[in-house]
Amino acid sequence: MQGIDIEAVKQFFLSLQDRICEQLSAIDGRADFVEDDWGRGRSRVITDGAVFEKGGVNFSHVQGDAMPGTASAHRPELAGRSYQAMGVSLVMHPLNPHVPTSHANVRFFVAEKPGEEPVWWFGGGFDLTPYYGVEEDCRHWHQTAFDACAPFGDEVYPRYKKWCDEYFYMPHRQEARGVGGLFFDDLNEGGFQRCFEFMQAIGNAYTAAYIPIVQRRKDTAWGERERDFQLYRRGRYVEFNLVCDRGTLFGLQSGGRTESILMSLPPLVRWEYNWQPDENSPEAALTSVFLPVRDWLAPQ
Amino acid sequence: MQGIDIEAVKQFFLSLQDRICEQLSAIDGRADFVEDDWGRGRSRVITDGAVFEKGGVNFSHVQGDAMPGTASAHRPELAGRSYQAMGVSLVMHPLNPHVPTSHANVRFFVAEKPGEEPVWWFGGGFDLTPYYGVEEDCRHWHQTAFDACAPFGDEVYPRYKKWCDEYFYMPHRQEARGVGGLFFDDLNEGGFQRCFEFMQAIGNAYTAAYIPIVQRRKDTAWGERERDFQLYRRGRYVEFNLVCDRGTLFGLQSGGRTESILMSLPPLVRWEYNWQPDENSPEAALTSVFLPVRDWLAPQ
Repeated sequence: MQGIDIEAVKQFFLSLQDRICEQLSAIDGRADFVEDDWGRGRSRVITDGAVFEKGGVNFSHVQGDAMPGTASAHRPELAGRSYQAMGVSLVMHPLNPHVPTSHANVRFFVAEKPGEEPVWWFGGGFDLTPYYGVEEDCRHWHQTAFDACAPFGDEVYPRYKKWCDEYFYMPHRQEARGVGGLFFDDLNEGGFQRCFEFMQAIGNAYTAAYIPIVQRRKDTAWGERERDFQLYRRGRYVEFNLVCDRGTLFGLQSGGRTESILMSLPPLVRWEYNWQPDENSPEAALTSVFLPVRDWLAPQ
Repeated sequence: MQGIDIEAVKQFFLSLQDRICEQLSAIDGRADFVEDDWGRGRSRVITDGAVFEKGGVNFSHVQGDAMPGTASAHRPELAGRSYQAMGVSLVMHPLNPHVPTSHANVRFFVAEKPGEEPVWWFGGGFDLTPYYGVEEDCRHWHQTAFDACAPFGDEVYPRYKKWCDEYFYMPHRQEARGVGGLFFDDLNEGGFQRCFEFMQAIGNAYTAAYIPIVQRRKDTAWGERERDFQLYRRGRYVEFNLVCDRGTLFGLQSGGRTESILMSLPPLVRWEYNWQPDENSPEAALTSVFLPVRDWLAPQ
């Protein structure tokens, strides 16, 4: 039986946070991430940048002596074990409505009991939320996801692409949050080393997926109409995170650090009763063309 | 056994909606409520008024052949009965940060089964969410609540004031949503007529509680600082409604009309990571002086 290396996972997360922040603040050009060490993690927040109106890249490392029953609903045998949960979680909200919002997360969980093998798993993924959809960008995003998964088997991308589509869905709007990407959880098949490598591949692929899109769209002109639509659609982002996201709700209900959990919320948001886009407008295309589940890598 | 008069309740709700909208649009002076009939209710929305940036006064009347199990968790014997739920629900979001947001709701529920007495109850209340607290306003709000309850017994106000404080609390912020008011549910003691009268007294008291406050504060000068704080605090309103409010969550999860349920959300909202008010500022006073539970009618 192969051992697990918690310290190596932690060092990867810290290095990933560093590398992502460096690349994102380089492309922003104006604002830098401000670090906030709060004991069980370090938050890095960028505000009022040239590209990013608000963004947060959070590393957290939570340990406990006895796993609460609620944390292990799908694995009741783990209740009462000592555990560690760590990961990197990020959301970037650009100012320009032509640049999509992006979210990524990689995480590791281990529950230990003296005299027994530790139980562990990885989870993670990344997903894209455009306001004004561009086919080329969606294909690039999914191609990068596909390429990151490919060395681990042909079934990996389709499986985690589908899981992502299912997870980031709002029943009360009958609408996806965005154009998807990858989502995986409970990953421990194939041994620690291989799972760790897969998680690293996904974590490392995020900037390769996102930065070219930011680069291409950050100088596209926009005005009040595009800004209004972006703020309106950010309302959906809030609805997903506060109503549908199990991670957010679990965090809030289990006494997690509220400011770090809600770092994902957009800086400015708008709600308008019964708003509908004009027919055949770019705003209507978001919901009619981009948000319905699609195979973005199908031959053109 | 006294009968129940569903039609009289419905007529009261419709008339209450009319009267509230008339008084609120009169004080606004610029904007009018726009009606939207959607089959199981009529929504009335005011937008970009001189006083109200956004507000909604909603009447809804939902009927079903078989009550879903989830709707009657606290009364499992009602599952499968035919039922009617109706009520008026409103939230007003003023533009001026010195005018508090207010919420009111009155509702009636009846479950029927051939050959058996119908099971019915009333619920309702109103609560106030200031941004810049004013003691005089809070006392007036609670005094009006007290006066509406007084004819129905001395224990009524303290009981429903406490229930309101408990209901409008956000565990993840360890903070109340506002300065409270009244909240009651499952009311059927004392017979239909008396309960109906109490619900009417509460519904009718809302404008008497709110309008004098609006009148007093609507011309107070404000600037960017007050607006920023208002938008920031509106984030808490969203958090309460989407994370904590059982009514909202039940509505969304049970396939209610999303646009009507989320009419309560503010028009424009801001989130800022780890924001803290300056010490001894009016913004700090909101959380230190106004939001902690208080007896607003205690002798000065």
